[in-house]
This record gives sequence, structure tokens and C-alpha cells, in this order.
Amino acid sequence: MTRALKAVALGGGHGLYATLLALRTITKDVTAVVTVADDGGSSGRLRRELGVLPPGDLRMALTALAAGGGDAGRWRQVFAHRFGGSGALAGHAVGNLVMAGLLEVLGDPVAMLDEACRLLGVTGRVLPMTAQPLDIEADVAGLDGDPATLRRIRGQVAVASTPGRVHRVWLRPDRPQACVEAVRAVGDADLVVLGPGSWFTSVLPHLLVPDLATALATTMARRILILNLVPQPGETAGFSPEQHLTVLLDHAPPGFTVHGILADVDTVPVPARLHRCARALGGHAYLDRVADDGSTDRHDPVALAAALRRILGQSIDTVDTPGDRKSDLQGEEKRRWP
Amino acid sequence: MTRALKAVALGGGHGLYATLLALRTITKDVTAVVTVADDGGSSGRLRRELGVLPPGDLRMALTALAAGGGDAGRWRQVFAHRFGGSGALAGHAVGNLVMAGLLEVLGDPVAMLDEACRLLGVTGRVLPMTAQPLDIEADVAGLDGDPATLRRIRGQVAVASTPGRVHRVWLRPDRPQACVEAVRAVGDADLVVLGPGSWFTSVLPHLLVPDLATALATTMARRILILNLVPQPGETAGFSPEQHLTVLLDHAPPGFTVHGILADVDTVPVPARLHRCARALGGHAYLDRVADDGSTDRHDPVALAAALRRILGQSIDTVDTPGDRKSDLQGEEKRRWP
Repeated sequence: MTRALKAVALGGGHGLYATLLALRTITKDVTAVVTVADDGGSSGRLRRELGVLPPGDLRMALTALAAGGGDAGRWRQVFAHRFGGSGALAGHAVGNLVMAGLLEVLGDPVAMLDEACRLLGVTGRVLPMTAQPLDIEADVAGLDGDPATLRRIRGQVAVASTPGRVHRVWLRPDRPQACVEAVRAVGDADLVVLGPGSWFTSVLPHLLVPDLATALATTMARRILILNLVPQPGETAGFSPEQHLTVLLDHAPPGFTVHGILADVDTVPVPARLHRCARALGGHAYLDRVADDGSTDRHDPVALAAALRRILGQSIDTVDTPGDRKSDLQGEEKRRWP
Repeated sequence: MTRALKAVALGGGHGLYATLLALRTITKDVTAVVTVADDGGSSGRLRRELGVLPPGDLRMALTALAAGGGDAGRWRQVFAHRFGGSGALAGHAVGNLVMAGLLEVLGDPVAMLDEACRLLGVTGRVLPMTAQPLDIEADVAGLDGDPATLRRIRGQVAVASTPGRVHRVWLRPDRPQACVEAVRAVGDADLVVLGPGSWFTSVLPHLLVPDLATALATTMARRILILNLVPQPGETAGFSPEQHLTVLLDHAPPGFTVHGILADVDTVPVPARLHRCARALGGHAYLDRVADDGSTDRHDPVALAAALRRILGQSIDTVDTPGDRKSDLQGEEKRRWP
């Protein structure tokens, strides 16, 4: 087999950005499936003003997969550029405005993203989780000093920034229609990566879109979950790695399993507990060094890529896959990672 | 000779747009040289907020020369699309925002426009008159009921919208530096077309940029001036075709001549007067039908193209050009207009 490994990464923000940078060193066929519940910053303003899909997380995914040089590289810079000053445009990323305009003209977010991919020389694809903007609601504990009292908080920024621990999240509208192309990409994938990222507002939402959750539970792809490096204040304050997995399972559909859970070795105080948890999710825990040296909370894409390659090299021998897909991947291994 | 006729059109707004649509049916090698003194609408807001070159007239020139279909055609639509609603973005053309962002990233307006040309599939080129935004100032008569009293008005919108007759215009900064590529394009051209358009704020300004005015006066190109169909309230109220030429000469450098003056036959009450005036400017007057049926003040690009072809077909026999350039153009005639 000479076709490239089909990888799908689900998430949002900087976490997804790091995963995509890692995956693009492994294969040319990367599809990003991106959360669309952002209501802050430039995205929030565009969403409120124009009613469009919040473009920020989609734009970050596009720039992660964009070509580095030539015309495409210049457009990548332009997409990431933010207007300064203190006027009506201050803080808007140019790419967000381009995407909003393109969406108003083309009408369809997938067509808009495919056009942006062409402009930016993306070899893979960027897709929204749903074609409509979503809102996140959450029950948050500990807001009033009493850890037993839950308060309902609405909006991604509010959920992510309100102090306290998120107990449960759900989407508005409830049970939204998944982007058909995203569901198909997960179904057709060889490798699916979920996380890292804001756990309740960028990672778990993918499990709350029914058709996408079903695809994640039933795809024949190797499914790898990447844990965050640190708990996130306002979302997962004080969470252990295992608690991240527990809340994920609480939000996942019945039958959802993963083949591998990747965590930075320095962030796991009791490895045995994580291994136990991973087995409960149907897979193995892989402890590796994947943190960025210069940051406390960001992954190093190069280290992440190396760790993913190690897991893939191992899982193709250990994960029960149909013979042809297994040999496909072994061929892939030989071709791309000599 | 198999090379395409090199045409340069100077102006701004809808007038330049019509000329460019006409010229692109005559040759593939069209360069637009565009006024950059707009201070109204989306352009004015961007100029005030970001200090960038007002992009609106440049954007119109780009869309006039853009490819019609495929990806480029979609971007053409996106460039022309304006955000609606009543928010911070309302009324902004998406292309203006893209150009402003591209300019902030690339730093150089010519590089910005060349990149936009690639995106839009422009086969020619769009250039600004100057690399810096300009302001127009004018002495306007008749503002206070007394036709003898002149008032100084500043800004393109103010000059164009203040009632009264413009007496004289000048630029701020005075004697600005011309865009080098625009000067070169005029010098290298086979055909230069000035007008139609807002006479004092889109057409005459080109004669007020010293290096550009010199290039216009000394180029070996056939130079054609296209007159407006109607006087423009606030600028040229009550002007006859001949008065348009008189004020043009008042603002032109010594030695400035044209080979042809094209006017719609229905807008010239006394043809003999226009012919006399044309001779004073060194050329011929051509009366043709070039108005758009559905509009009182806009040219029909198809009729304009036909009229320009007739003038070119005639002028190559009557205008004194060096032999090789003359035969070039005759070859060109044969090749492109069988």
C-alpha cells in the first residue's frame, strides 16, 4: 500500500494546533475536526455581529496545516495577523475576517474551509464539528465557596474562566447535527487523536455531538487520547490525569474506547493508576516526554510526533485490527518512518 | 510582433472600473494606476483606523481585471462582498479588509497588490498612484451664494459632496512621490487612457503627482482622454465638455498633450467647439455612443471598448509614432481585432 495514513485530530485551540503540527510530520493526510463553541475574542465578536461560525479555532487549525513558503506562506502570515490599535477592527485576526466573508458568500462552512485550505496550501482538510455555532453550558461546583453547590454557567469563555470545577458540560442546541464530512473522516480514518486542549470546552464537546460520538465509538481507526500537561484553572483545577479520563468517560457514549492514552511522564504522579484507568478505557497508557521546554502547559509538536510514532509502531502489533488495515499501516510505517 | 498591446488606465472609482472592463477585452496587458485620496466609506474608516492606503478604488480595479471563474472568481466575489448589519464591520468590503491586512504584513503596497492580483487571477497589474495615502484640497466657488467667493475644502468626500463648483485642486502632501512602478508603466505603455471619473478627485490628481505627470507628458504611448457623460454635482456642476478640458489643462504640466478625446455624441452640444479644444490639446475629438443604456452617468464597457478600438485603428495611421511602434500596433490590430 502506498497511500498515506489517514489521520483525524479532534479538538480546538492551542491543543489541537500542537497535535496537527505533530501529525503533519507523520502523514500528509490530516483532517482537523474543530469545536465551534467559542464565544470570546475576535471569534465571539464575529459570531455575535454576523451570526457566523466562530472562525478562530478553525483558523488556527488551518495555519497549523498550511504550507510554510511561497504565496501560501504569505497568506498564512496574513491569516494569523491581528489588527492593532483601538478601533473597530482592533484584535481581529485577518483570517477570521476572510473566513467570515468567504462563509457569507459561499454559504457553506465546508466549502469555505476547503477554499481557505487551497489558499493556504493545506494538504489535509479542516472541518467544523457542526455547521452551526454551538454554545456550551456547564454545571460548575465551588463557585460560592461551597463545593457541593452547582451553578449553571453558559458560554465557552464563561465556563473556561469562571473559577471552580466543572462538573458536567452539554451543548446548546442539545444533540446538534454533526458535520457530515467530519463523521465520514472519523469513520474512514486509520488514526484518530482526541486532545489535548481545554478539556470541557474543546475536547469533550466532540463526544456530545451524537453522530460524531457514534463515529468515534465505532471507527476502525487507532484511537489515541492525549492528556493535558496541567489542570486548567476554571475547568479542571486540581484534576489528576485519571480524573480527566473519568469525566471523559462520563460524557462519552456507551462503548467508547481508546487504544492509547498518551501522557507526559512528569505529569503522572502514580503511573499504576493511569495504567489501570487506561485498561478500563480499553487501551494502554503511554508515558513519554512531550512537554514544551519553554512552557508549562503546551506540548512540543516534535516530541508529540515522536511519541505518536512510537505508539503507532507498537499498536500496529498489539491492537486487534483487520489484517489488511494492519498490513496497510505496517507498509505505511516502513514507507514514512524508515 | 506577437506581444500584447500594453495599456495603462489612470483614474479611480466607477469610471476606472468601466475603462478597465473595456481594455481587458482589447489586450491582456492592462495596468491600472489608481488614485489613493479616498477618505469616505469603508476606505476612509480603514485609512483613519489603520493608517493604510485607502483600498476601495484599488479593490474595484482588481475586481475589474480579475478572472471570472474558478477559485479566482470566488475570491472576486468575496472581495466585493460587504458585511451587513449595524455592527463594527457593517459596510466594510471584505476585499478592503484583506488588502489592509496584507499591506500590514507585507509593508509595501505594490507587493500587496501583486499578491492580490495572483489571488484574483488578474493578468495585468493594479498599482497605486503613490505609495502613501493622499488628501485632496480644493478651492470651491459658489458655496455661500456668491460665485466669486472661494472656500478651501479638504478631503475627497468633502470636495465631491460640497455643493458649488471646484475651481482648483491640489494634493496634500504637495508634490508627492509617485509609485515608481506606475511611472514605469506609463513610460513603457503603448496606450494610456485617462478618465472617465470624478474629474477633480479621481482624474486630475494623476496630473498633480510630479513624476507621474512628467511620464504622462513624455510617454510615447497613444494617450486617450475619456470625458464624463454628465457634469458631477459638487465638482463640475454646469461644466461643458470643453470646460472639463480647460480645467484639465489648468492642472496639467507644460507640454501635456493627448492624441484622442473620446466623448459620447449625445453629451456634446457643439461638436465644433470640442474639436477645436481637442486640437489645442494636440489631438482629435472622437464622438461615439459609449453611455450605458440603463444609467445616466455610467459608460457601457462594451461600447467603450468598441470606441477605443475604432480610435486605435484610426490613430495608428494618423498619429505620428516611430515606425516600429506603429507597425507593432498595426500587427497588434490584425492579431487581436481581425
